[in-house]
Amino acid sequence: MEEKSKYPLLEKIDSPADLRQLKEKELPQLCKELRGFIIDSLANNPGHFASSLGSVELTVALHYVYSTPDDDIVWDVGHQAYGHKILTGRRDRFHTNRKLGGIKPFPAPEESEYDSFIAGHASNSISAALGLSVAAKLAGKEKHVVAVIGDGSMSGGLAYEGLNNLSNTKNNLLIILNDNNMSIDKSVGGMNQVLVSMHSSKVYNKIRYGIAKGLKKVGILNERRANAVIRFNNGLKAMIFRHHNFFEGMSARYFGPINGHDVLELVRMLRSIKDMKGPRMLHVHTKKGKGWEPAEKNATVWHQPGLFDVETGERIVAEGGSPRFQDVFGETLVELAKENERIVGITPAMPTGCSMNKLGEAYPDRFFDVGIAEGHAVTFSAGLAKGGSLPFCNIYSSFMQRGYDNLIHDVALQRLDFVLCLDRAGIVGEDGPTHHGAFDLAYLRPIPNITISSPYDEHELRRLMFTAVQPGNGVFVIRYPRGKGSIIDWRCPLETVEVGTGRRMKQGKDVAFLTIGPIGKKMEQVIAEADKQGVSVAHYDMRFLKPIDEKILREVGENFKYVVTLEDGTVKGGLGSAVLEFMAENGYAPHVEVMGIPDEFVEHGTPEELYRICRMDAESVLQTILKYKDTSL
Amino acid sequence: MEEKSKYPLLEKIDSPADLRQLKEKELPQLCKELRGFIIDSLANNPGHFASSLGSVELTVALHYVYSTPDDDIVWDVGHQAYGHKILTGRRDRFHTNRKLGGIKPFPAPEESEYDSFIAGHASNSISAALGLSVAAKLAGKEKHVVAVIGDGSMSGGLAYEGLNNLSNTKNNLLIILNDNNMSIDKSVGGMNQVLVSMHSSKVYNKIRYGIAKGLKKVGILNERRANAVIRFNNGLKAMIFRHHNFFEGMSARYFGPINGHDVLELVRMLRSIKDMKGPRMLHVHTKKGKGWEPAEKNATVWHQPGLFDVETGERIVAEGGSPRFQDVFGETLVELAKENERIVGITPAMPTGCSMNKLGEAYPDRFFDVGIAEGHAVTFSAGLAKGGSLPFCNIYSSFMQRGYDNLIHDVALQRLDFVLCLDRAGIVGEDGPTHHGAFDLAYLRPIPNITISSPYDEHELRRLMFTAVQPGNGVFVIRYPRGKGSIIDWRCPLETVEVGTGRRMKQGKDVAFLTIGPIGKKMEQVIAEADKQGVSVAHYDMRFLKPIDEKILREVGENFKYVVTLEDGTVKGGLGSAVLEFMAENGYAPHVEVMGIPDEFVEHGTPEELYRICRMDAESVLQTILKYKDTSL
Repeated sequence: MEEKSKYPLLEKIDSPADLRQLKEKELPQLCKELRGFIIDSLANNPGHFASSLGSVELTVALHYVYSTPDDDIVWDVGHQAYGHKILTGRRDRFHTNRKLGGIKPFPAPEESEYDSFIAGHASNSISAALGLSVAAKLAGKEKHVVAVIGDGSMSGGLAYEGLNNLSNTKNNLLIILNDNNMSIDKSVGGMNQVLVSMHSSKVYNKIRYGIAKGLKKVGILNERRANAVIRFNNGLKAMIFRHHNFFEGMSARYFGPINGHDVLELVRMLRSIKDMKGPRMLHVHTKKGKGWEPAEKNATVWHQPGLFDVETGERIVAEGGSPRFQDVFGETLVELAKENERIVGITPAMPTGCSMNKLGEAYPDRFFDVGIAEGHAVTFSAGLAKGGSLPFCNIYSSFMQRGYDNLIHDVALQRLDFVLCLDRAGIVGEDGPTHHGAFDLAYLRPIPNITISSPYDEHELRRLMFTAVQPGNGVFVIRYPRGKGSIIDWRCPLETVEVGTGRRMKQGKDVAFLTIGPIGKKMEQVIAEADKQGVSVAHYDMRFLKPIDEKILREVGENFKYVVTLEDGTVKGGLGSAVLEFMAENGYAPHVEVMGIPDEFVEHGTPEELYRICRMDAESVLQTILKYKDTSL
Repeated sequence: MEEKSKYPLLEKIDSPADLRQLKEKELPQLCKELRGFIIDSLANNPGHFASSLGSVELTVALHYVYSTPDDDIVWDVGHQAYGHKILTGRRDRFHTNRKLGGIKPFPAPEESEYDSFIAGHASNSISAALGLSVAAKLAGKEKHVVAVIGDGSMSGGLAYEGLNNLSNTKNNLLIILNDNNMSIDKSVGGMNQVLVSMHSSKVYNKIRYGIAKGLKKVGILNERRANAVIRFNNGLKAMIFRHHNFFEGMSARYFGPINGHDVLELVRMLRSIKDMKGPRMLHVHTKKGKGWEPAEKNATVWHQPGLFDVETGERIVAEGGSPRFQDVFGETLVELAKENERIVGITPAMPTGCSMNKLGEAYPDRFFDVGIAEGHAVTFSAGLAKGGSLPFCNIYSSFMQRGYDNLIHDVALQRLDFVLCLDRAGIVGEDGPTHHGAFDLAYLRPIPNITISSPYDEHELRRLMFTAVQPGNGVFVIRYPRGKGSIIDWRCPLETVEVGTGRRMKQGKDVAFLTIGPIGKKMEQVIAEADKQGVSVAHYDMRFLKPIDEKILREVGENFKYVVTLEDGTVKGGLGSAVLEFMAENGYAPHVEVMGIPDEFVEHGTPEELYRICRMDAESVLQTILKYKDTSL
C-alpha cells in the first residue's frame, strides 16, 4: 500500500499554471504544505529560513492572481523567495538549494524565467521593477510587474531613489511592502489604530494632477516638462506635505495594511487592485518565521539557522575549535574601546553578522547600527571621525561596493582617522556570486591616502586593529574572510606592526610565494610539502597591499626567477597586479604567476569546492609551485 | 581723494566674528554688497553662479546666528558656498577661486576651519553633519551643527539614509532645506496654501515617544533596543503614517517654509530654533540666481555661465571649433535611436551636461532624467534592459562611483545588453579632486562580463556607440573626457569596430607607445617630434581596456625593449597595469613605463596645468620617450 503523501496538493504544482487550477478554498491547505515542505527541506539542507516562512501566503497569492512568468515578480534580496522557487518548477531540485550545481541561493534569471531580476543585495527591487514595467509599456506589452520589498530593505537609499521616480513614467507597478516583525506595531498595540486602512488623499491627488494637466493644456508646460516637474517634486512634496502619506506623495496609491498570512484576503486584495492604472503600494503585515515557533520567537537566530532537528526544533550547532574572525574582531574592538574612549563602532544592519553587537552591549552609546545603508554608514562614520571620534566601520566586502564613492569622497580625500573593516572578504561559499567579496583589493588599491591590509591569522587581526588606532595612521582598511580562523588561543597581547611591511615566513631559493591574508596561512603545509618534493619555497606574508612592502619585492626581484602570488580576491587589480607592476617598473623580470579569483563570476557551493574550482586550494597551489621544480623551465 | 568703496560693509568682514559685530539692521546692506561682490568676481573669474546668489541671505544669517567655526555648517555639494568663502576670511583671495593654488572650488576643511566637511558630490551633508553632531555629544562638547541641502540633492538616496537615522542618536542637528526654484510651488500658486507653516504633529510625537519611554520604564526594552526599534521604524512609519509630515516621522521637528531672501526673518527664525534639542528641519524658499535677472530667468544656463559682461549681462561665449565629446554623444544617440526603437536614454540629473537633452527633445518617451540618483539610474536601466529596451545610461565618471555596486550586481552579473557612457572621465580641471574621473578604468577592469572602451576621437566615439548597440555585445562601457575633441567635421558614417581590438596608428622600432582614449590623439605631434629627434615610436591606440588586444600586446612584447603607456586615469589598475600583467605573465620583459594620474588626489586648476603637473602633457611625454634614445639604457 502506497504511503500517503505529506504534500498531496503541493506535489501537483509543477508550475504556477497548476497552482492557478486550484480552487480558492484549497489555497490555505497549499500554504500549509508549502510551509511544511520548506521546514522539512531546510532542516536537512540549511538556508535562509525565517524570511521564506513569512512570505508563504504572499507567494501563493501572487502566483495565483498574476500570470507569471508573463507578469514579473521582483523579489528584493531574495531571502524570502524559497516558496517562489518551489512553486515555479524547482520543487524536485530544492534539496540541492545552495549546493554546487544546484538551485541558486537567490532568484536568478539564468535559472528560471520566473525569476524576473537578480536578487541578493538589498533595496534594488523598486528600481528594477520600474525598469521592467516601463520597458513593457514602451514595447506595447500588457504586463503586470510586482516588487516585493521588506521593511528592512526600505532603509536603503536605492529604494527611496526608486520610489522618488515612480510617477515620472508610465507604469502599472505594484510595490508590496512586506512589513514583518521588525515593526513596533505589535509591541505597542495602540499604534495600529493610527495606521489607516485605505487611501484617503484623493482630493490632493486630484488637485495635483489637475494642475499639471491644466498646465499642459494651456501650453505652459509640454508633457515631458510637466512630468519632470512632477517627478522632481515628488520626494520633496511627500516630505513636507501633511495630511496625506508618503507613498501618495510619490504618486503611488496606498493600500493596507492587511494580514499577510491570510491567503484569501491577499488574493481578494490583489485581484481588486490588479487592473488599476499607475503605481500602487500594498502594505502587508507578516511574521518572520511564521509557523515555526522557535523562529517566530527569535528571527535573528533563525534567519539562517543551519541544520536543525525538525522533531525537537533544536538547532544542530557544532561547537568548539578556533573562533571566527568576526568574533576576534568583535572581542578585540571591545578591548580597544575600553582603552580609547574615542573609539566608536558603525555597522549597516550587521551587528550580529560582524559581531559588533559585543561593542553594543559593552558601550551602547558608542555603537551605531544604521540599518541597511552602506553609503550612510561610511559618510556618517566620516562625520564622526571629522568630529573627533575614531570610527570602526564594519561592512561586508561585497556590500561595501555600495559605499565606494563615500570612501573616496568623504573619507580618503579628507585623510580622516578611520578604520574600515571588511568582513566576508573573498569567496563566501553558498551565498554565491552576489555575495563573494571578490573585488575589494582591486577597487581599493587605486584610492590615494589609504592603507589596505589583511591579517594572516587571528593574532595578526588583533595587531592590525591595534595598529589602526595608533595616532596618524589615517584611513586603514582591514579585510578578512567569513568563517573560522586557525588559532584556538587567539588572545595575544595587543602590539603594533609597522605599516607597509610584510614578513618572510620561510626562507627558500627556488620559488618566491607571496600571499596576503589567511589564505596564505592555509598554505603552510603545501609549502612544506613542496620543499619535501624538491622545490624550495620562500614564503612572504605581504600583510599590506598598500603601501606594499617594496623591500620584500626588491628582495624577491633580485633573488628569484619564479614568483607565485596568491590572494582571496580577483586576479585583476589586487596583489598580483601590484607585484607585476613593481617588477616591470623596476626592471626585474621574474616569471610571475598570479593566483586568485578568476576574471569571471564565481558560482555558489561550499568554500572548499569553490576554492578548488578557482585553483586556489592547497592541491592546485602545490601543483603550481611544483611546476617550477625544473628550474630550466 | 580716495574712491568710495563699492563694498563698505563687506570690506570690514574678515571673519564671521566681524559679521556678528554688525547691527541686525545692517544685514540687508551686507547681503546686497555680498551679492554684488559675487557678481563682479564671477564676471571675470568664472565659477558656479546661480546657486551662490540664491544662498546669500542664508549664508549671512547662519554666520550671524551661529558661532562658527565652533559651530559647524555643512554645505551639500558646495555650489552655493561662495558667500560662505567670502565671509570666512577668503574675500581677498576670492579672485583666485578655482585657479591652481587658489581658493578651492568647493568647501574644503584643509583650506579653512570654517569648512566643516568636504563637499562636491551631492547628498552627503545630512550623514556627515549627523556624524559631527554625534561626535560632539560623545565628547561632551556643546556644538551646533547645521546641514544646508538643496531640493535637488534630496533626491539622492544618501540624503534619505541620513534622515532615516536622525533619531537613532542624541544630536541637535539642524537641517536647512534650501528649496530653490526647481519647485512647482511658484508655478501652481495655490499649492503654497497647503504647505503649513509650523510643526503640528505634537500629539503624534508625544504618543510615540511616550510609548517608547514607557516600554523602557517597564523594562520591556532597554534604552539601546528602544532606540533601535524607533530608528528602524522611522522611515517606514513616516511613509505610511498620515496626518503628520515625513520629517516628523523621522523625528525631526519641521519649521517653515520661510522666505530665504529675507535675512532678518531668517535670523529671527534661526535664533528661535537654535537652542531646541533634537533634530530639526527648516524649510527655506530661495531663488537660484537671485538678484541677477538673466540667471533668475534661466538658472540652468547660469549655473556655471563662464565669463560674462557685468554691464550688459551677456555671457561671453567662444563659438566655433571642434564639438565637445558630449555633443557628439548627444547627436549620435539621436541618430541611433532613430534606427533602433529599443534604444532609451537615462541620466541622473545631467541632461544638459551630457547632452542627452537632445534625445529628450527628439524622443521624450524614451528619455529618463531620474534626478541625482546614480544608483537608481543604473538599476533602473538594468530593469529596462531586462525588459527588452536597450539603455544608454550616461553618468559622469566620478559620480559613477555611486553606482558601482549596481553595475556589478544588477548589470554585469545578469550579462545585460547595456551601454554605460562615462562623461567627464579623466582630469576635469577647475572642479578639482572631487570631480576628476580618475578611477573608472581601474575600478571597472576587475568586473567580469563587461567591455571597457575609450574613443581616440569623435569618429571613434560614434563607431564605439554604434558597435555597442550591435546584438550580443552585452555590457559596454564607453568613457570620454570633458570638453572638446579634435575633429570639426565629426559626422562620419556609423560603422562597427571589432570588440577588443586596438589600432597601430604608426609604425616604429625603438619605443612602443600604448595609449587609450583622446589623450593618445593629443600626442600625435609628440610622436612625430620624437621621430624627428631620433627615437622611432610605434604608436598603438588600444581603444579597448577590456578585452584588451592581446595580439597587439604580443607584437609589442616580441618586438620592443621599451614600452610607454599613457592613459587619462590612475596609474594603478588601468591600462598600465593591464600591459604590465600581460608582459610578466607571458614571459616578455620589456621595460614598461606607466604614465597616468599619479597615486594621489589631483588638485584643481586648468586642465593644461594639471596635465603638466601629472606629467601627462605633450612635453613630459616627449621627454619620457626621448629617454629611450640611447637604447643601451
